[in-house]
Amino acid sequence: MDDIEIETVAEPETEQPVFVEGLPGVGHVGKLAAEHLVEEFDGTLVRRVYTTSFPPQVTVGDEGVAELTHAKFHYVETGGENLLVLTGDHQAASNEGHYALTDAFLDVAESFDSQRAFALGGVPTGELIEDDEYDVLGAVGDAATRERLQEAGVEFREDEPAGGIVGVSGLVLGLGQRRGFDAACLMGETSGYLVDPKSAQTVLETLQSVLDFEVDFADLEDRAEEMEEVVGKIQEMQGGGNVAPDDELRYIG
Amino acid sequence: MDDIEIETVAEPETEQPVFVEGLPGVGHVGKLAAEHLVEEFDGTLVRRVYTTSFPPQVTVGDEGVAELTHAKFHYVETGGENLLVLTGDHQAASNEGHYALTDAFLDVAESFDSQRAFALGGVPTGELIEDDEYDVLGAVGDAATRERLQEAGVEFREDEPAGGIVGVSGLVLGLGQRRGFDAACLMGETSGYLVDPKSAQTVLETLQSVLDFEVDFADLEDRAEEMEEVVGKIQEMQGGGNVAPDDELRYIG
Amino acid sequence: MDDIEIETVAEPETEQPVFVEGLPGVGHVGKLAAEHLVEEFDGTLVRRVYTTSFPPQVTVGDEGVAELTHAKFHYVETGGENLLVLTGDHQAASNEGHYALTDAFLDVAESFDSQRAFALGGVPTGELIEDDEYDVLGAVGDAATRERLQEAGVEFREDEPAGGIVGVSGLVLGLGQRRGFDAACLMGETSGYLVDPKSAQTVLETLQSVLDFEVDFADLEDRAEEMEEVVGKIQEMQGGGNVAPDDELRYIG
Amino acid sequence: MDDIEIETVAEPETEQPVFVEGLPGVGHVGKLAAEHLVEEFDGTLVRRVYTTSFPPQVTVGDEGVAELTHAKFHYVETGGENLLVLTGDHQAASNEGHYALTDAFLDVAESFDSQRAFALGGVPTGELIEDDEYDVLGAVGDAATRERLQEAGVEFREDEPAGGIVGVSGLVLGLGQRRGFDAACLMGETSGYLVDPKSAQTVLETLQSVLDFEVDFADLEDRAEEMEEVVGKIQEMQGGGNVAPDDELRYIG
Repeated sequence: MDDIEIETVAEPETEQPVFVEGLPGVGHVGKLAAEHLVEEFDGTLVRRVYTTSFPPQVTVGDEGVAELTHAKFHYVETGGENLLVLTGDHQAASNEGHYALTDAFLDVAESFDSQRAFALGGVPTGELIEDDEYDVLGAVGDAATRERLQEAGVEFREDEPAGGIVGVSGLVLGLGQRRGFDAACLMGETSGYLVDPKSAQTVLETLQSVLDFEVDFADLEDRAEEMEEVVGKIQEMQGGGNVAPDDELRYIG
Repeated sequence: MDDIEIETVAEPETEQPVFVEGLPGVGHVGKLAAEHLVEEFDGTLVRRVYTTSFPPQVTVGDEGVAELTHAKFHYVETGGENLLVLTGDHQAASNEGHYALTDAFLDVAESFDSQRAFALGGVPTGELIEDDEYDVLGAVGDAATRERLQEAGVEFREDEPAGGIVGVSGLVLGLGQRRGFDAACLMGETSGYLVDPKSAQTVLETLQSVLDFEVDFADLEDRAEEMEEVVGKIQEMQGGGNVAPDDELRYIG
Repeated sequence: MDDIEIETVAEPETEQPVFVEGLPGVGHVGKLAAEHLVEEFDGTLVRRVYTTSFPPQVTVGDEGVAELTHAKFHYVETGGENLLVLTGDHQAASNEGHYALTDAFLDVAESFDSQRAFALGGVPTGELIEDDEYDVLGAVGDAATRERLQEAGVEFREDEPAGGIVGVSGLVLGLGQRRGFDAACLMGETSGYLVDPKSAQTVLETLQSVLDFEVDFADLEDRAEEMEEVVGKIQEMQGGGNVAPDDELRYIG
Repeated sequence: MDDIEIETVAEPETEQPVFVEGLPGVGHVGKLAAEHLVEEFDGTLVRRVYTTSFPPQVTVGDEGVAELTHAKFHYVETGGENLLVLTGDHQAASNEGHYALTDAFLDVAESFDSQRAFALGGVPTGELIEDDEYDVLGAVGDAATRERLQEAGVEFREDEPAGGIVGVSGLVLGLGQRRGFDAACLMGETSGYLVDPKSAQTVLETLQSVLDFEVDFADLEDRAEEMEEVVGKIQEMQGGGNVAPDDELRYIG
């Protein structure tokens, strides 16, 4: 196998879809959001990307049929702007792998004539967030993009997130901008301790407004309710206190 | 030394042997099973595979004679289907190494005209297993293979194993299927805390049924009895309780 | 992206500037010192260096605009010897990456006809240092350089620092000397537990004397005062004792 | 810099010297033994080996002059068989680096027409060893070599050392034998907790007998006495008990 292999699954007619990335990360916010788009709009699988910097692993599906780990691109027709959505179960395992893999992802996006790119993710706040206080933080490749996002309610805060943006999301922005994409990162605030469908919904609401589509949130709302029950039970077990940043609680879901 | 070197030791006449992989992993189930086949049927060593992604290490044999660490292929005549059995002491140390090494293993299997591949391994249950409750879990490259294995009693469970199949076994399935092998993984249930000859026997009983051969299990049964004595002593030391998932107990054997 | 990419930002007229390196390290002494030179003398950004051995990361600036992580070279006119100053937020993540990256940095310095190189850094003493006891320790590529530095008050001690000099600073000296640079390392003594602007100032005072320039220290003095307040508060919290080499205190700043 | 660079320092006339390796490892036995040979016989530095898989580091000598980390070959005239002795401060940092580096070391040995190779090291026993009970354990590339070593008192024990021989010593044996060297490993028993000059002496006494030379041990005996004082003080501090396998005690010296 080559270091990176891009497999063509389908070649639908497309017109400059907006590239949307949602790989695993803080609170799995980006992954939940991107998968929700693919499911709700019944996206078409167009590319599989295999790489030797993914873990040496197969996933086993419903029928016991195994698939070599890979990232997926779906073409998603939303009624508004159409999307090229990247999802998957892994990031790369090394610095070098991250750069090579993101370059490959951007190659795919370029081959679809994508000119805009959104990296979706979460930004950890360190504490559980009250229901109506979810903000979406933004970062952009250039100032013009920022203004359009501010109109959609995206927050831009000096030097936040403090540690920068790490992983494929960061590189979609950093490498994407160097290759001429109009790139932005939308980060939903999230505790950082739990898988967070609520934060994913907030990120999607922002994306809707920017890209002029409407998606049904019933499924994410169900998952958010399940998570609230989990949190409730944990708080009971801890005598009603707040959920502590205990490693055992990270990414329960 | 090249990254991977394949050394030809013997070139017996063979006819499409079934490729069987058994490298170290959970409960050493695959390794025990594969080594048992080589020993009981007095297999012929046909290839050695050296790689710079194995640890920089020699093993020292009975007479103080050292051998550079390598994986071995034996040709094994069973009376039923004949086998090309892969054994060894190590997996690769990096993601990239795993992919390159498994590709080399599949190259060897192809050079022997193997068309079917079985990766043997263990699946951890997290608790000690009562004697007559050992199941063998399966995963396959395509649905047709699944049906034949179900007839032999292999269990297929939705989305199990949950974390997928990691390491060379996973890639024999994932890369093998992409290269046209009829590939399957047979995973014996095992606690995950101890080397498990009993689980290895159950996996081999399944393989026997599928590939139409018969092997003597006296040796594995002896080793299973020894392990039961070890477990008994541990339980005594712990006041008769169950063996806990204590790291110190992992892979005692 | 290539493994290492050097981007030309400006090409001012220069005349054999002295190469000065200040990447993150013990007490961030080198980084603080190098950044102070760039800021006080209003240096001109001349090169950006990107590499896949940096973390896959963007930093987000004041306006939410993201930049792919990179190291920077500024041309700095001091009134005395002019400088080519290297700053950045990361070292490489692997041994091989360190060697390749330092070779690239030295390529840049050679392209500016630099013939002398100073690597700035800190050397940990393990205890808080009284105000007037900051020494600067030196290491050099050859004995002639040592004498000139001793005249400027740099200390040379047998076999110190004991563990050698690790990272880009060590390689600027080790690889630089092999390529014909007149190379030296200036290491300010520092506790090793805190970001240390005071130590950075002492290193710069030495460099001033060697390279015949004068820089204003008001800004570093302000930061040193802030650090003293932090240390004071910590000592109060600990009942007036010394600051312990507690991991939580490392590089507070 | 290339991945591996071999620098020629001197080209004395030599006649098939015996290659002797002594890099850092268990109890620093091999390193102490090899350095002792170079010092006592006033060996001639003939080659330096630099590699990007060594740490990015310079060592600082007596006069503050820094040297890029490297391994050294000395040509050593003993009166008996002459030696080509490899010493240094580091092993490689990755599996791949170990293989490439040992291949380079064997290239150097071949360029000197060496036909025999001895890897020196320690084998950990897990307990402090009484003065007159130091054994030397052997491993060889083929059985003929074993017999000659047994005559010199080297012990060969079934399947020992249990975990094989790891690092450059293991590969000098494993790769050396594949390239046609008459290769052996001599491992002095040692607690594994302390730098052990006594064990190094025992290894050298064996080598003397095999290669027909005589070396003065006064210096190693002095260092052994110093170590005994250190051990005595530790035992006092612990109330006279044995030195425990405490990590803090590892490689005191």
